[in-house]
Amino acid sequence: MKAEILSIGSELMGGRIADTNAAFLSDQLTLLGFDVVRHTAVGDRREDIAGAIREIAPRSEVAIVTGGLGPTRDDPTREVFARVCGVELVEHAHARAAMLALFAARNIPAPPASNFVQCLLPQGSDYLPNPTGTAAGFAVRHGRCRFYCLPGVPSEMKVMYRQSIEPELRRLVAQAAVVRSLHTFGMGEAVIGERLFELMAEGHNPEVATQAQEGTITVRLTARDTDEAAARRRIEAAERVVRERLGEVIFGADGRSLPEAVAALLERRRLTLAVAESCTGGAVTALLTDVPGISRFLMESAVTYSNESKVRRLGVPAEVIAQHGAVSAATAEAMALGMRRTAGVDVALSVTGIAGPTGGTPEKPVGLVYIGLADAAGARVEEARTGGSRAQIKDRSAKRALNLLRLYLEGGESAHG
Amino acid sequence: MKAEILSIGSELMGGRIADTNAAFLSDQLTLLGFDVVRHTAVGDRREDIAGAIREIAPRSEVAIVTGGLGPTRDDPTREVFARVCGVELVEHAHARAAMLALFAARNIPAPPASNFVQCLLPQGSDYLPNPTGTAAGFAVRHGRCRFYCLPGVPSEMKVMYRQSIEPELRRLVAQAAVVRSLHTFGMGEAVIGERLFELMAEGHNPEVATQAQEGTITVRLTARDTDEAAARRRIEAAERVVRERLGEVIFGADGRSLPEAVAALLERRRLTLAVAESCTGGAVTALLTDVPGISRFLMESAVTYSNESKVRRLGVPAEVIAQHGAVSAATAEAMALGMRRTAGVDVALSVTGIAGPTGGTPEKPVGLVYIGLADAAGARVEEARTGGSRAQIKDRSAKRALNLLRLYLEGGESAHG
Repeated sequence: MKAEILSIGSELMGGRIADTNAAFLSDQLTLLGFDVVRHTAVGDRREDIAGAIREIAPRSEVAIVTGGLGPTRDDPTREVFARVCGVELVEHAHARAAMLALFAARNIPAPPASNFVQCLLPQGSDYLPNPTGTAAGFAVRHGRCRFYCLPGVPSEMKVMYRQSIEPELRRLVAQAAVVRSLHTFGMGEAVIGERLFELMAEGHNPEVATQAQEGTITVRLTARDTDEAAARRRIEAAERVVRERLGEVIFGADGRSLPEAVAALLERRRLTLAVAESCTGGAVTALLTDVPGISRFLMESAVTYSNESKVRRLGVPAEVIAQHGAVSAATAEAMALGMRRTAGVDVALSVTGIAGPTGGTPEKPVGLVYIGLADAAGARVEEARTGGSRAQIKDRSAKRALNLLRLYLEGGESAHG
Repeated sequence: MKAEILSIGSELMGGRIADTNAAFLSDQLTLLGFDVVRHTAVGDRREDIAGAIREIAPRSEVAIVTGGLGPTRDDPTREVFARVCGVELVEHAHARAAMLALFAARNIPAPPASNFVQCLLPQGSDYLPNPTGTAAGFAVRHGRCRFYCLPGVPSEMKVMYRQSIEPELRRLVAQAAVVRSLHTFGMGEAVIGERLFELMAEGHNPEVATQAQEGTITVRLTARDTDEAAARRRIEAAERVVRERLGEVIFGADGRSLPEAVAALLERRRLTLAVAESCTGGAVTALLTDVPGISRFLMESAVTYSNESKVRRLGVPAEVIAQHGAVSAATAEAMALGMRRTAGVDVALSVTGIAGPTGGTPEKPVGLVYIGLADAAGARVEEARTGGSRAQIKDRSAKRALNLLRLYLEGGESAHG
């Protein structure tokens, strides 16, 4: 069954941004079993949008449209669909009620009048609620194609896709597909590719593909069969093989993030945590606090950027910094031990390194990071080298620290061991 | 003069990657003065590619094509162009010589035979040299359109665009364009649309468009005129009007982020900063530490999740929390004052709130956030309501806190004022 993506917005034509919505949606549709044949992006001009809709209508069964649902006059999606389908725009009562509720929650009793244009939908279309924004979505048929129109803000678009579109699309495709994603950290994509070589042959069922993200690599298994139970059996057999060959680098499945894996392990082992960060500047804590309920385990966190704060907040001996430098195994160890002691927690994690782009030397280059982990038995330190931009080094170092913690929590041994 | 981008590759349909090539090329063409009307992406199927070429040929004067020039059988660009144009593929002598030289430089005297398919070009096309890879590019006319075909590897594509295509396009286009982006925080898109209403009419020069991102809204001006100086004058006149009407919600231009604006202001005013975060869990600090050199101003940061850590680390009086609750104006104020005092900085920022999804009450709903700001003169607190998922509330609250700090730093008044 053929599907397409249509992205609307002049920012895509000349605004220095890549169309990440198309990438996300195309991925989702492919995994549902659709044959995604084309992405199209056009600006805000009504005739260009209408032209794209008319081309897609006879070509594909499903199209997901993003953008052009804002409240300003350069947001033409509603209007163009109404015109192409030959219907009027009418205010949708549920959309209006949802908008009023959204503004009320922000303590704004009367939304700006121009916002209500976002409650207008082409007559006969189906309303797609937007739980986190003011732009109402809609689904409408033209030609042989059902168009699903969503706002371009990625977070709103994703919530609406999951809530209103994915369930409907799942019923549309005749085949059953089961997808299992296994998330790894710490092994290169090429090595994974070698270990899974024959599973990754074209035509293999399940289809096995690797995808490198920021620091993590996902092995995605997609099994297709006549029914879901049969597809699931295929997945389970293949998953056993993959887990056998990749071992402990797999930290989770089906969207579980590395911080979620850490949180689950802290819960299972009933341990409290504190984090002392230098070069990662709060990135470890930011990742952990994306997990709801983490406050039961994460007692506190400090970003001790300056030497002085390392000494004062964490009790790192000034001589350690003077002798070994702020970026050193000794300082990372003292930070972890000091944080554990002052915060009164079971386990403390520390990170110190050089995020760049300046500050590197031949002995201590940009990307050098020390990760410390302290428990009741003592401390261990891992030295790591990462690369990329400042933001990449921060992110990769933070994930590396979380992965060290994960392996420690999975292993059950002491930090000193 | 109309231009389009055509991207070829099944990896784009699989959704694993966003099409950054299209974003780069579209920007370049816009700045040269072209009217980029459409991006199209298709997979490796020959009929899909041929269909896209036939649609573009009568529609636009220029198209830049990326991808499908590799050495394997799923790289069909050369072949499809030859077929659509009704010509043969012929080996290009310069392309062959360049490939031999490239392999020789890597100490490989005899390239694999299959590589030489990359020296085949449609008869009558113009060879576009690839100085850093084996895929030869070419330019060929079909219909009214000149197609420039480049490899999909971004680094190779960019070098070839600069070297072979940009100079030719510069001669083609009589117009020049100038783009200016103004980034705002704190005013709804609908209100911005009302204030800029007549500037946003279709056909206005400069073209004025708004784009909602995560929390910020960008107003983008694109001016076209006979030369760059004239386009720049148009931009400057329009920018004055926009700045007059939107005022202090504009925090930066041309890609400057909110944390970058804050860092520049801290530098200009020679002030040091510390941050005490509760519900944002380090998100404020993470945003700030994305800015290189922030360590000169950001002295430290603490995530004081528990009441106990608010008391111990920041010196928040236990009675304040007992009487008003951890999520209260009084606690936010005490956090800011306590952080300022213990860290010994000029300005301290604090955030406490309810990120959800649980923990809300009718009096203190999910999304309620207090932001505190302390300086030598005292402290101020702002109450804010945000909505969305836990991640959105964290992100929006963090940006709101940074924006409060920005306005304070711009204003030059004391926190107490």
